[in-house]
Formats: sequence, C-alpha cells, structure tokens
Amino acid sequence: MYPDSLKNLIEAFKCLPSVGEKTAERFAFSVFDFDEDQIALLKDSLEDVRTKVHPCSRCNVLTEEDLCSICQDEKRDSKVLCVVEDVKSVFLFEKIGMFKGKYHVLNGLISPLDGINPEDIGIDKLLDRIQNEHFDEIIFAFKPSIEGETTALYIKKILDGFSLKITKLANGVPIGADMEYIDSLTLERALNDRKEVS
Amino acid sequence: MYPDSLKNLIEAFKCLPSVGEKTAERFAFSVFDFDEDQIALLKDSLEDVRTKVHPCSRCNVLTEEDLCSICQDEKRDSKVLCVVEDVKSVFLFEKIGMFKGKYHVLNGLISPLDGINPEDIGIDKLLDRIQNEHFDEIIFAFKPSIEGETTALYIKKILDGFSLKITKLANGVPIGADMEYIDSLTLERALNDRKEVS
Repeated sequence: MYPDSLKNLIEAFKCLPSVGEKTAERFAFSVFDFDEDQIALLKDSLEDVRTKVHPCSRCNVLTEEDLCSICQDEKRDSKVLCVVEDVKSVFLFEKIGMFKGKYHVLNGLISPLDGINPEDIGIDKLLDRIQNEHFDEIIFAFKPSIEGETTALYIKKILDGFSLKITKLANGVPIGADMEYIDSLTLERALNDRKEVS
Repeated sequence: MYPDSLKNLIEAFKCLPSVGEKTAERFAFSVFDFDEDQIALLKDSLEDVRTKVHPCSRCNVLTEEDLCSICQDEKRDSKVLCVVEDVKSVFLFEKIGMFKGKYHVLNGLISPLDGINPEDIGIDKLLDRIQNEHFDEIIFAFKPSIEGETTALYIKKILDGFSLKITKLANGVPIGADMEYIDSLTLERALNDRKEVS
C-alpha cells in the first residue's frame, strides 16, 4: 500500500519507545514537511550518537571525550559523590543545577529476581573510585523501590570500613501532589520522616 | 549538559509532531539500544522518502513511480472516483480494503478564512481528470466540517453539467461510541438520516 521507503520509515519509527503503527505513520508523514536541514540534522545526529558518544571512562556519564564535562570541571566539589542508576538521572539532576558534586552512574540496580546481580551493574568500578578519590559523602539517588533499597544496602555494607557519610534522597509527599492520590507507602514514609515546622 | 550529537538528535526528534522535550529525550536515549540495522533503516528511509517518494502524476497518491500502484491496477473499477483531502485518507481506505475504485487526492480543503481558495487545492487537476476519464460516480470523502461541506458543494456546482452520480460519506453515530459522548450535531444528523430496521 505505502511506497517502500515510506513503509521502511514507518517501521524505523516503530523502534522508538511507545511508538505504535499510528504514531509511526504520523511521524513518517510529517517528514514530508521537513526541510533539508531538518532531515540532515536527524540523519547526521543518529550517526553521531552511535559513533561519537560513549560512557565517560571515570563516571559513565555520556560524553564525546574520554572524560565527561562534569569529571573535567574542577570547580565542582570532588568530595561528594552522587551515585545514580542510569545516565538519565544525571541529566535530571543537572537540570535542577543544585548539586555541585560529582556523579557515578551504575548500570542499573541489583534485582536478583531479574537475574541482575551486583557484578552486573558495575559496582567494582564504583568501589575502585571510592578507594582512590577520597570522598567525604556518598549520596544514593536511586528510584524508591526494592531494587533501589537493595542496591543502597549492598553498597553501604561494603563501604562499612570507610569513614564516609552515606546518605540517600528523602522520600515523602511530592510537591504539588493531590493528597488523595498519594499511595499509602509514601504517606507512611512521609509521616515517619515528618519534620518540625520551623 | 548533553554531548553535542545527543543534543542535536533531541532537537531533530522535536521536529516530529506532538514530540516535546521529554519525549525527544526519551527517543534519543532509546537510540543507544538500537542495533546497526535499525539505525541504518531510519537513516536510509529518511533519505529515500525525500528523494524517491512523490505524488502520483495522475491522482497525487504517494508513489516511487510515475503512476501509483492504485492507478496502475487494472482490476480496480475505473468508473468510481473517491475524492479525498489528503494522502493519509487514501491509506485509511486502503486499510479497510472495501473500496475498489480509484482515488483523487486534493491538496486540502477550501477554507476562505485560512486563505485557502479553490485554486490552492488542485481542483483543476481533478476537473481535467473527470473530463477525460468518464467516471460514473464521484464520492466525496472529506472530513465532516464546514471546509469539507464547502469543498464538496463547490465541486458539485462545477460538475452540474456532467451526467454523474455525486455522493458523500454517511454521517452518523460512530460504531462503538458511548451515546453520552456524541456531540449534538452528530446526533441530529444521525436522527435526520435514520434508516429503517430491516
């Protein structure tokens, strides 16, 4: 029904997350309204992210160089390390712009049920770093879940011998949330960790 | 914050319809999970749709040849012409597979308020075709709207001299719709055009 190249483009768009037949068709038809530059941008950047972008040799954040811009930045506090479960988390924190320390990106979280064990998420590299770089504080910024708790506890246990402050993100009621939609676990946690009104 | 090529890819994805910053970022990150073939498919088909695909010289359906596969298909009824407002409509009809006649794709619908006049939507080409190809029936398959009605009436008026059956799609309650969500105009039309239960 569709010309071959249009069919191929629809198939290609369907590889993107949450893009089904209808959306892929919409995307493909929209390409007819692209100008030369837009097509070139999409084509070239697709190629470039494949060939140029790779994990930072120190912290695993995506970069086009050997060390990422965060590792290279000497103005950042090299005494505080924020450990995250994936690269996207780093970009989320950088968008807020409040955290001025360094990052370390794990390759996911420990999840024995899914067959993901400590050695699979690159904890060795993190431990090497902690041994060599003399941090004062390690912050675990994992998603609030069994896997997040497990990973944090596992690493904390290994770090028991080090004189380090080990912290994790606060849990509680998200700002702007409608109270009736907060799940009971979150509410329980928020109640337990309640803070004095100052 | 992002490496340049990743930033470019995010920008490129933002050119797609209804894709904002967040979705574009999600798409861009997903590209890291693509294999070589998927990248190549997306890159090559982007190029191909630009260079190879163009409107059929007769009916405006997208094709990689001079005449589209529908115009070339001699098994199709060349006495019935379905006039649509865009190429997508043709593919919608072809998916049902019920219509076995030919198509003609206009370049949109007449909309004086938006400055779109009859000469802008390629009515001349349609009239040429009707004069040369001796159809028995012309079906207007436009979206139910003021623009659709205007375009249908305008063409019908011009075709008054021809001995042609001129029809349009039925309006009414869509199958599976929840009655309480049907707008009053549709309900009014459905009531007026009610059919005897057979």
